[in-house]
Amino acid sequence: MTAFEQLPRSPHDKLLFTPGPLTTSMTVKRAMLRDLGARDHEFRRVIAEVREGLLEVAGVSRADGYEAIPMQGCGTMGLEAVLASALPPQAKLLVLINGAYGERILRIAQRLSGVEPLAYRVPEDQTFDPQEVERQLAADPAIAMLVVVHCETTSGILNPIADLGQVVRRHGRRFLVDSMSAFGGVEFDFRGCGIDYLVSSANKCIEGVPGFSFVLCRREALEQSDGWARSLSLDVLAQLLGFEADGQFLYTPPTHALLAFRQALAELKLEGGVPARAARYARNQRVLVEGMRALGFQTFVPDALQSPIITTFRNPDWPGFDFSRFYDDLEDRGLVIYGGKVLHESTFRIGTIGRLFEADLRALLSAIEQTLERHRRTL
Amino acid sequence: MTAFEQLPRSPHDKLLFTPGPLTTSMTVKRAMLRDLGARDHEFRRVIAEVREGLLEVAGVSRADGYEAIPMQGCGTMGLEAVLASALPPQAKLLVLINGAYGERILRIAQRLSGVEPLAYRVPEDQTFDPQEVERQLAADPAIAMLVVVHCETTSGILNPIADLGQVVRRHGRRFLVDSMSAFGGVEFDFRGCGIDYLVSSANKCIEGVPGFSFVLCRREALEQSDGWARSLSLDVLAQLLGFEADGQFLYTPPTHALLAFRQALAELKLEGGVPARAARYARNQRVLVEGMRALGFQTFVPDALQSPIITTFRNPDWPGFDFSRFYDDLEDRGLVIYGGKVLHESTFRIGTIGRLFEADLRALLSAIEQTLERHRRTL
Repeated sequence: MTAFEQLPRSPHDKLLFTPGPLTTSMTVKRAMLRDLGARDHEFRRVIAEVREGLLEVAGVSRADGYEAIPMQGCGTMGLEAVLASALPPQAKLLVLINGAYGERILRIAQRLSGVEPLAYRVPEDQTFDPQEVERQLAADPAIAMLVVVHCETTSGILNPIADLGQVVRRHGRRFLVDSMSAFGGVEFDFRGCGIDYLVSSANKCIEGVPGFSFVLCRREALEQSDGWARSLSLDVLAQLLGFEADGQFLYTPPTHALLAFRQALAELKLEGGVPARAARYARNQRVLVEGMRALGFQTFVPDALQSPIITTFRNPDWPGFDFSRFYDDLEDRGLVIYGGKVLHESTFRIGTIGRLFEADLRALLSAIEQTLERHRRTL
Repeated sequence: MTAFEQLPRSPHDKLLFTPGPLTTSMTVKRAMLRDLGARDHEFRRVIAEVREGLLEVAGVSRADGYEAIPMQGCGTMGLEAVLASALPPQAKLLVLINGAYGERILRIAQRLSGVEPLAYRVPEDQTFDPQEVERQLAADPAIAMLVVVHCETTSGILNPIADLGQVVRRHGRRFLVDSMSAFGGVEFDFRGCGIDYLVSSANKCIEGVPGFSFVLCRREALEQSDGWARSLSLDVLAQLLGFEADGQFLYTPPTHALLAFRQALAELKLEGGVPARAARYARNQRVLVEGMRALGFQTFVPDALQSPIITTFRNPDWPGFDFSRFYDDLEDRGLVIYGGKVLHESTFRIGTIGRLFEADLRALLSAIEQTLERHRRTL
């Protein structure tokens, strides 16, 4: 076992095969057994290390013109922060939608003053046509920004941010990527994708605990947003300038969650960085799908578009199969899976991120097989 | 020692004489050594217990028409959530200001669409005249809501929410109390004060860790706000209805901070509830002020208006006294005090909330005396 693999988990917790909050290491959680003042020298170092570490995970640097800005609250607040901060006073926003998280971004934008959101929707098991995006951007110069969900966890589909980013850049618009569940867990070229803003959250593929989100952005883009923020507590540029003025958060930060995140970043490095982590998640997902198919389950997303993050399975029409009983029986064995979320089919989901290894997926598959067997016997 | 007094703190951390994040018990932090799914049965019970516990601390109940709604993020986000949710589409807001936190509320309101904030300012060592509030409300029926900071930690002054609430109620307007640093640490009659909305935070007098704020409100008031919310992620009514629909947060909650908070509520009960905690804080503050006066320091706020939460001292003009050296020397001894924040005087602050006891204040006083002595010797 590698040093990373030897790190313990909580001994009494169920394993979470979900899109997060996830199973984390005990060492990440133990980092929270501290009380630091929010303005302490020591805590300012934590903030600086976390901001540096995030840029490193993204493969960009301050010298290249990129910034990392942690924001208090959940990921949805982080997304709302970017939209409320970085859209000009009167602007159209093109929202690419193939799942519930794209729909949520549309709903965020609908509430913001001076924002006119436009939706480009495709079915949940399909992704977007860059040529159609090209056409829409060319037809409407008032579209200031395009936003897309990187891994749409509604289905588990991975959207092609590199192709989309090229189109957006060609038209000189801003490109926002909601990489909540993907950042740190899949490899991609941040600069090459032409990303202006990316939002993710502490409790996803970096394997920290929930409590804050973070914005990675091109500084030049954010600087142009001066005076646009529609919110005080979700003002991204003000928070960046605050970090630069005194190294502190403007408002009380979740000190413990940040201590946990610093440890999570160290453990990501110990594992071998994003390439190693992405490989582990991909292996987890491959083992899962092979095993589930051997048991007769069908996946919802075409293999070519499937992410390693979470996988949607169709609820089978086998006699005696009842999802809520299936879920409860697995939970009784300490294995937590996830309900379905796609609109027009009955499905469920199994996540493969967090502190989960191939052996955990094999244990889950074995428990699923036994559960199905028992359900068949009790028909 | 009582059972409460025997609970340990972190052995290696400095003591935080600040307005928060505070020193907490080790048992509160150890409650975070778990990974729960956000939609688990077990976590839904945590949410339900926290919501019940908050109503109990406030001395109100659902049967009386009150609700407790935790919201992700920092306290400032909780305040913005209430203002963005509960103000009618076109409304004036009267903001009572005698410090930086009142000014912050004004700045939140200035960014919200359809909100016209009015300020009633008094000097930072004074509080508001209920007759003047009466006059302003009578003169302008378009004022939909009045907001005041309960304990203005800029100075440590305690504003008279009972008197103000009576005036607001007489005029049929909404009353919002920012009780960030006071809730749980001072006794007051929630119903009697006529409070429609109160906002506080997990890491203040309940002695949890930072990561979320909470809204306590009259359900009838909040229900009338249907359709008004200017934000999706800060929509208080939607979150209440979400809790009632399935017991869950709408967006990913800080599961670990909620586990810590449930433990903090249990420890508040163990101490003897708000009366016992308020008595401990008041004793801490009394010991502090007596000791500081004996050393020659002067307080900024008149005694009759002073809260037990945090105390502002004037920086003395003694030869050799330099606040930043004073601060650093105390920090080297493991004792963290706080800089000043009032506008027109050079001051510093010492907080008396969190897991601090009379003996800790005496230890701080003794360290201050020794530090001053050394500074005098090295003149």
